[in-house]
Amino acid sequence: MSKSGSKPVIGITMGDAAGIGPEICLAALNHAKVRALCTPVLFGDPAILTTVAKQCRIPLTAPVIALATWQEGYQAKEPVIINTGIIDTPIQPGKVQAPCGWAAYLCIEAAVDAAVKKQIAAMATAPIHKEALRLAGITHPGHTEIITALTHASRTCMMLTSDAITVSLATIHIPLRDVPASLTAEKILDVIELTADTMRRMRQREPRLTVCGLNPHGGEHGLFGDEETRLIEPAVAEARRKGWDVTGPLAPDTAFTPEKRAATDAYIVMYHDQGLIPFKMLAFETGVNVTLGLPIIRTSVDHGTAFDIAWQGKASAASLIAAIRTAVQMA
Amino acid sequence: MSKSGSKPVIGITMGDAAGIGPEICLAALNHAKVRALCTPVLFGDPAILTTVAKQCRIPLTAPVIALATWQEGYQAKEPVIINTGIIDTPIQPGKVQAPCGWAAYLCIEAAVDAAVKKQIAAMATAPIHKEALRLAGITHPGHTEIITALTHASRTCMMLTSDAITVSLATIHIPLRDVPASLTAEKILDVIELTADTMRRMRQREPRLTVCGLNPHGGEHGLFGDEETRLIEPAVAEARRKGWDVTGPLAPDTAFTPEKRAATDAYIVMYHDQGLIPFKMLAFETGVNVTLGLPIIRTSVDHGTAFDIAWQGKASAASLIAAIRTAVQMA
Repeated sequence: MSKSGSKPVIGITMGDAAGIGPEICLAALNHAKVRALCTPVLFGDPAILTTVAKQCRIPLTAPVIALATWQEGYQAKEPVIINTGIIDTPIQPGKVQAPCGWAAYLCIEAAVDAAVKKQIAAMATAPIHKEALRLAGITHPGHTEIITALTHASRTCMMLTSDAITVSLATIHIPLRDVPASLTAEKILDVIELTADTMRRMRQREPRLTVCGLNPHGGEHGLFGDEETRLIEPAVAEARRKGWDVTGPLAPDTAFTPEKRAATDAYIVMYHDQGLIPFKMLAFETGVNVTLGLPIIRTSVDHGTAFDIAWQGKASAASLIAAIRTAVQMA
Repeated sequence: MSKSGSKPVIGITMGDAAGIGPEICLAALNHAKVRALCTPVLFGDPAILTTVAKQCRIPLTAPVIALATWQEGYQAKEPVIINTGIIDTPIQPGKVQAPCGWAAYLCIEAAVDAAVKKQIAAMATAPIHKEALRLAGITHPGHTEIITALTHASRTCMMLTSDAITVSLATIHIPLRDVPASLTAEKILDVIELTADTMRRMRQREPRLTVCGLNPHGGEHGLFGDEETRLIEPAVAEARRKGWDVTGPLAPDTAFTPEKRAATDAYIVMYHDQGLIPFKMLAFETGVNVTLGLPIIRTSVDHGTAFDIAWQGKASAASLIAAIRTAVQMA
């Protein structure tokens, strides 16, 4: 793992140029706590970053390193910007634009490459816009899927973590109607194991995991659905057999009460909103998104591109700073 | 509406005899606040109530009225017990038993009949057990469905209300996989209108309603599902056209943040756990279940039979007392 002194080098990707990504990355790059924890390296478009820095009145003092120089094995000893390519058409803030989708993809690709080669210890990503990606010809719906493909990872999952609650998702960005058919006992077991491994590393002890059911009241013994008995119970039994401390499947509606949360280090949920509703109620601006199962460490902000306030200097860098802190913890 | 002096007569149903229903009903019948708000009338089995009163050391002083006497038009001027039939086999607490399912059904039937005839102003129900009902030959999964059938109501829905949050459900006790096909624009519009009507009565002003989407991020413009554009948006548009203050469909995961909750009197959710997860996080023991769209007023506790602590005098009557208070507000 590449370190500068005792501090890890952490890659940050700029995200969609038309969103709040550039300004929160610049703020994080300057942030005293970030600089104390790690050596941040920002993958992005220097022209966009210069424009946004001026517009938002954020000092930009970090030197720009050419991508070729970086890829020859440059060792970052201070915060730097890696030039992943300059967008050669005018960009408007707050708009879906194909060049922004493509530029965002190039940042991710360069950071993943650096992480695989251990030139950076981990990467933290700013938000991208799915429609801009699609206009640029990238069909993956999000970071998790892009990085899974780039690293040829065989089993990955998305985890959201915060001081208040941690949730791992068995399915992510698919229509609700496709959730039941997308679940398998193997997939659920994968998510349990990936989460258990990660939480053990983060908590430095055996984690207590809670697995949610899929149906109202957890199916109520088959009255309202059989995925609990057919898929989830076997996965939980197998995880227990392997020695993990796993409870469930629980009725989803009572799984997130304060008492249950106090007895849980991480939840395994069956679909996006089953986990994201409680998560965003408890950790709206401090959540960190972690992709588990990759050969690299990747964390992310827990918010979108916020086009409505882009380039105005209003965006909070709190979630990105939390993502960098989690990346350092995991590195 | 039948009143004793200025106080409404409120019917209470005992629920499943083997659960915590009998003891919380007895506690509510004795409760000073309940007696100040209304004249409570308890529909139940006097033998079970006597046994539970002794076992839990709850005073039982209310006189028992025969069902025939009651049905001849008895006017309740003090708390009374209406004898809806005595279970003639020994009952064990904490067990699923067919006679308990049948006895629970008889209480509900008698209370619904009294409410339709305006002998009581409203009814508040203690918890029943679906499996016991099923053993007794009742195939409806819950109170809402039983009372809908008994009153021949054409459109009903389940609402959960508390000081912190109120949610109305477009679908209730069905497998998650059946939710998308069960939604129609008409059904969603019904739930919006029923909720709006009720909240206007309860809040004495125009209510602000928030409608949730079905899919992750509200479908993200069709990327993850089309129910938002196909069903929910048309229902919201029609409700607005009718003059209601309705927002949505919102992305479900960010719909329940403190800021959004402060701007919402009631949520319309698409499925059980979309509403019940946030509801039980915020109002675990103080929630009240209300069936909207009935020709009668019916509220209920927001918890189950709690077989594990039945007949031990440990159960809290807080939710039943809240249900009685809401029934009085609506009467």
